[in-house]
This record gives sequence, C-alpha cells and structure tokens, in this order.
Amino acid sequence: MSNTTGMANLNLTGDDGTVPTEDEVNPWEVHASSATGVDYDKLIKRFGSSPIDSALLSKFETALGQPPHFLLRRGIVFSHRDMDQILALHSQGKPFFLYTGRGPSSEAMHMGHVIPFLFTKWLQEAFNVPLVIQMTDDEKFLWKDISLETARSYTTENAKDIIALGFDPERTFIFSDLDYIGSSPEFYRNMCRVQKAVTFNQAKGIFGFTESDCIGKISFPAIQAAPSFSSSFPRIFNSRSDIPCLIPCAIDQDPYFRMTRDVAPRIGCPKPALLHSTFFPALQGCQTKMSASDANSSVFLTDTPKAVKDKINKYAFSGGGATVEEHKKNGGNCDIDVSYQYLRFFLDDDQRLEKIRQDYSSGDLLTGYLKKELIELLQAFLKSHQEKRKAVTDEVVKQFMTPRKLKFDY
Amino acid sequence: MSNTTGMANLNLTGDDGTVPTEDEVNPWEVHASSATGVDYDKLIKRFGSSPIDSALLSKFETALGQPPHFLLRRGIVFSHRDMDQILALHSQGKPFFLYTGRGPSSEAMHMGHVIPFLFTKWLQEAFNVPLVIQMTDDEKFLWKDISLETARSYTTENAKDIIALGFDPERTFIFSDLDYIGSSPEFYRNMCRVQKAVTFNQAKGIFGFTESDCIGKISFPAIQAAPSFSSSFPRIFNSRSDIPCLIPCAIDQDPYFRMTRDVAPRIGCPKPALLHSTFFPALQGCQTKMSASDANSSVFLTDTPKAVKDKINKYAFSGGGATVEEHKKNGGNCDIDVSYQYLRFFLDDDQRLEKIRQDYSSGDLLTGYLKKELIELLQAFLKSHQEKRKAVTDEVVKQFMTPRKLKFDY
Repeated sequence: MSNTTGMANLNLTGDDGTVPTEDEVNPWEVHASSATGVDYDKLIKRFGSSPIDSALLSKFETALGQPPHFLLRRGIVFSHRDMDQILALHSQGKPFFLYTGRGPSSEAMHMGHVIPFLFTKWLQEAFNVPLVIQMTDDEKFLWKDISLETARSYTTENAKDIIALGFDPERTFIFSDLDYIGSSPEFYRNMCRVQKAVTFNQAKGIFGFTESDCIGKISFPAIQAAPSFSSSFPRIFNSRSDIPCLIPCAIDQDPYFRMTRDVAPRIGCPKPALLHSTFFPALQGCQTKMSASDANSSVFLTDTPKAVKDKINKYAFSGGGATVEEHKKNGGNCDIDVSYQYLRFFLDDDQRLEKIRQDYSSGDLLTGYLKKELIELLQAFLKSHQEKRKAVTDEVVKQFMTPRKLKFDY
Repeated sequence: MSNTTGMANLNLTGDDGTVPTEDEVNPWEVHASSATGVDYDKLIKRFGSSPIDSALLSKFETALGQPPHFLLRRGIVFSHRDMDQILALHSQGKPFFLYTGRGPSSEAMHMGHVIPFLFTKWLQEAFNVPLVIQMTDDEKFLWKDISLETARSYTTENAKDIIALGFDPERTFIFSDLDYIGSSPEFYRNMCRVQKAVTFNQAKGIFGFTESDCIGKISFPAIQAAPSFSSSFPRIFNSRSDIPCLIPCAIDQDPYFRMTRDVAPRIGCPKPALLHSTFFPALQGCQTKMSASDANSSVFLTDTPKAVKDKINKYAFSGGGATVEEHKKNGGNCDIDVSYQYLRFFLDDDQRLEKIRQDYSSGDLLTGYLKKELIELLQAFLKSHQEKRKAVTDEVVKQFMTPRKLKFDY
C-alpha cells in the first residue's frame, strides 16, 4: 500500500503551501480543498464507486446474522465496489478472500495504521475467509531514500504490530514483496500479465507519473495489483485462479484497484471488490498536514501512557468554544474536534458515543472531558497492544510469513 | 536478450520500407543505411566502445597461451568494453564470470543463434569460468502476442539446443526469467536497485520507449541488467557481490549494458565488461530483411540435409558474376556473397578460408563451389547437433536450470 497509513494521511495544503481548489486524492497525496476535509460524496462520484447505504448495511446484517461493524455503521467505511456481489457469494456458500496491505515506511506504526487492520480482522472473522497482507517494502525502497535492507526490516517490525492485533495464523498470510516475489513464480507471472496490459500513458493518467519517475515506480502498480488474483497464492488456493477477492483499503488506494479491475477480465481473472474508508485525521485536525516525521501529529503504538496523555492534551485540535462560557453557550463542534473524531474510530459503544456527541454539542461537556475519555481509551488499548506485541517473536512472524496452505480447502 | 538471434537479425530497410540514412541499431531494430550492411566502425564511435585491435588480440594470446578464437581474429567479434581489464584479472588469477542470454521467441533456433553460444563456450573453456545464460521468456511475453506458457515452453526447447552445443553442467547455469525471478529474492532485489536508478526519460533515451509502451517493457531493462551482478546468483558466488562479469553479445544488445554500466557504480557493483559481435546475415544477403516467420531466410537447427541443400542453393545470395564468363573474368565479391560470409562464421580453418577467398575473388571458383562447401559443413554440423540434442532429456534441462552451486568456490 502506498500510503503510510492504509487509512491515508490527510493533507490540507499542497506541497507549495497553496490551497487547492479541488480535493486531490491519490496514493501519494491527499489534499482537501475545504477546512472540513475531503468531500467524500464528490469523491464517490469522481471515482465512480458506490456509497455504502442503508440497503447494503441491511444486506450485511442478513448475510452475517449480526450488525455490521461500527466503522461501517458510522460511515467511516463509506464506499464500495461490488460488495453486494461478495455478500451474495457468501450467502451462496461460495469462497472469496481478503487482501489488504501496508507500506512499511518506518518502524513505528501509529493509531491511524491500526484502524484498517482492525476492520479487516472483523471482516475475516465475520466471513471466515483467508486474508493476505502485502507489505510493499519494495515500493518504500523505490519511493524513499532508504536501503532495501532498511525497507525489509520495517516489514518485520510492522508485521509484529499487525500480528499483535490478533490475526489467526491459520487464516492469514503476511508477505514481504522483497521476499515473496522472489519465492513465487506464480506471483511474478501475474505481475507480468498486468504489466503487459497497462501502458505508461494509462499509468500516467491514473497515478500522475512523470517521465522523471524511475522505471520501478512506473511498473509498481502491477505489484499492488497481483495479490488481487488468487493464482498469485497457489499454496493457499490450490492453484485456483477463480477465487474472488475483497480489498478493504483507504480510498486513496482506489487508483491501484481501478486499474486492477480494468485489467482483470483481460487476463481472465475476477475483478476484486472493494470497501473504501475515509482518512484518519492528524491530532492537529483537518487544517494540519500530518507529518510522518512529526512525532506530535500522531499517537504511535510505542507511545507511553504519559506521552499519550501529553500529546492529546497538548495537540488534539478542539472543537470547543474559546472560553468555558462561550462553550457552555454555543456548544462544541464534533465535526472538527479531533478527540471526538478519534472516539468515532475507536469507541465501539454506539450509545455512549452518541451521548458524548449530544453533550458536547450542547455545551454540557467540555473538550477536556473528551480528551480524558480518549486518553483512557488509547492508554488501555496501547497497554494491551504493547504486551501482545512482546509475545510476537521472530518465530511467530516467520510462521505468518511462510508461504503455506491455510486452513481452507479448495 | 531482446533479439531473437543473440547475433541480431540484419534488416536493411525500415518498417515502412524506406531506406534510413543512418544505421539504426537497437535491441529491436537493426537497419543498415548502406547495401554493404552496418558500418561497424561508425557504431563503435557512436556507442563509445573500443575496437578489438591487434594489441588486444595479443593480450588474449598472452593471457590464454593460445590464439584467440577465429571469430575474434576475423573481426566478427569486433568491439569491447573493458576486455583488457578482464584479461588482466585472469592473469592475476582473479575470478570473473560470463553472462549471455537468449530471447526465446520460437521453438526453432537457427544457425545465427548458435554462433554467440559457440563463442561463449570457447570463452568459458579458455578461461575456465562460470557461465549464466538468461532466457528472457518474460520479455518475449511482453513484446509478442504469445502467452506466458508458450514463452516458457520456448525456453525449454531453446535450452535443449543450447545444451546440445556442449556446455558443461558443472560450470553453467541456464535460467528462465519466469521461473528464476520467482525463486531468487536476491535477483529481484537487484532488479529493484536498477529500477530505482533509471528514470523513464533515461529508458526512453536509451531504448526509444514511447508513452504507449506497456509498463512491463519500460521496466524490463532492469531484468536484463540484473544478471551482470554476481549477487543475483548467491548459490553460485557464495553471496559475493564483487565478482566481475564479462558479457559476450551482439552489438545491438549494447544499450542494455551501457545502462547497466552507468548504474553499476551507483549500486555498489562492478561494471560488466563486454565483447560485441557483428550481425549474422540472412540467406538473401544484406539487401534482404531477415524474417523469423520466413523459413527460407535462415538455416534452422531442425532442417534436414535436403532442406539445407535446397535453401543454400536456392536462396544464398551470390557475389558471383552474372555469367560464368563474366565471373571468370572479374571474379566474385566475397563481401556480399552470403555463402562466403557464412563460411567466415563457421569454417575454423583459416588457411582454407583464405584460399577460398582468393580463388573466389580471382574467379577461379564459382559460387556453386562455395555453396557446396557450405552445404557440406552445415549438414555435418546439423547431423551432429540433432543427434546431441536428442540426448538432452528434460532431466538434463532440469539439471542445468536448477539454481545451485557450480564447481567454483568463492
């Protein structure tokens, strides 16, 4: 995955500091033209995807016999392609698999990176299907000023965090491009098939490549496309090429899969279905450009309880009034309050979240209360995560990353 | 290797039938502007390589204690890069390795394809070094309207012909890109290193790619570059990355290795040295465009004795006079007589070749004699080759194509 987050970083301003007049959303840049962030309705129209509406949510509930995940219900996972077909397959007892990924651009993952994996884990458990997780360390090597060895080491560190979220080794295969491409002729063959089907002009149109880009970047999209095809994982799918794929990802990754869906029928493979999520805002709010090099813009999985407390208290953008009096009078604005937004991503109790929203909007609750709520929630999550991560040995990582049959028969 | 011949096909006219004003020599097109064929002296200047002169030939003889191969002495292998450094290494007892390749574009190889392998075999035996032979079946898939399966099957068929030339399995590794890239993370890593170091603009400048070319073509040059680096073959070179490489190839492949030599120091690898050969003419002579789909333009390794006789008699362009009287009076022109040119490539007896040249030039010998000489030589070669090829079982091919340590220690 090209972005460091999976759920992509949200940049409001362009590289030159100007405010663009239209949202720019692609795997490397996300610019919002408005202070309220990206206009996701417009994005659905521009990308040609479908909104996740109440009808689809009902189909989810019918298919699973349980309510859809709160990220779906809250519109954080807001758009899809062919999800209705996946639900229909599931209802017929037919197989599909999940594919998601991570661009390992540094050792430390932050909370924004965690969300898509938690959602994917829910999907995997709800549907009981295999999951492949691509670590695009080759892409990070191509895009960043780091060595192959460094990129590969980030894969291991990030895999430990992903595994610590509780994935089942009998249903999950995590792979490093740098290792797996060199261990799977079938994967390389699918890369070749895609690379033959896409011209430079098409890649330029989709990804904005220029003639000054290195040839590795230009052919990379085929590498992110290949895991959409079950034939790339012959050990998992018993060499079958017809198992459909569902990709949960942030909307900025859609260009890769628009391309993949265009190519799929031409190479005799099913088109992958997609579930798109919105972006995870920086602590500083929608107005601020999130920076991977700025430790204060995110809560990292390695942060201490004190660091979490200090960061939230100091940096989490407040939607409250300028004074207590003003806040009590006019209420807070949940749409721009980062603490509230984070609670939307992490607090699974709908009723409690709604109560907080009402009380904050009315002015009864101060920002300090939201921050306290969020701090406690994040501290508890991180304490538990950090303990689980310690238990993820190199041996466990190796287990997840060994090409092998999973518990499913084909 | 991009061209079907290794020693590339010689096309006199452009695709549109016009005669270009300057020789065009690149991995996919060879156009000569003159009826006498490509001007190789000009090519050396344009490509910036060095001519193989008598001083270098003497160094060869000193280093090997034997005369250089007749293809070197006759100027068929006519140009080089850093061959003097390779000879110096050899004299110091330091290691290097050979790398050549073949683009398996069809099941049948012709005599033009054989020459570079016979020359490479001589180099390997004279220097006693490892040889890697790349079968670029991925490239043929990308450039031609064939399936991956077909391209891969051509690799096996062509490998049988190459093995039948007498290569030593203890010193030779033959590999299919489609298989080996998916079996060697180290090879893929070198591909990534090269792909990061070359922009589309540079690839366009070197290879003439356009924006309508597929992204697979655009990144392919990195795949032909990677075998120049010993670290791409960790089993052979005990993971050493500092073993220099010598590449015998037809001059049209030079663009790949100019690029490789430019990139090598930037990725911490030695620049490969090169030996360049001239092109092998079509039966119809320098005026005729050789066509892979025209069975009458080449002698194939599968041809029967009768087919050889008929093709040479019917198609081999004659440099003789229009009538016997005229021929006796003015003599024949060896420079354009295809039978004579073929004898230069295949007849190892210098004295006999020189006698033929003199007698044909003076008019004493008729074209029919040259044809008879060539027919007998080719029939004997093919009889022996076809017998040897029968002995090359799938098991033998597997032996050559299994990634493994060779007989050399590092």
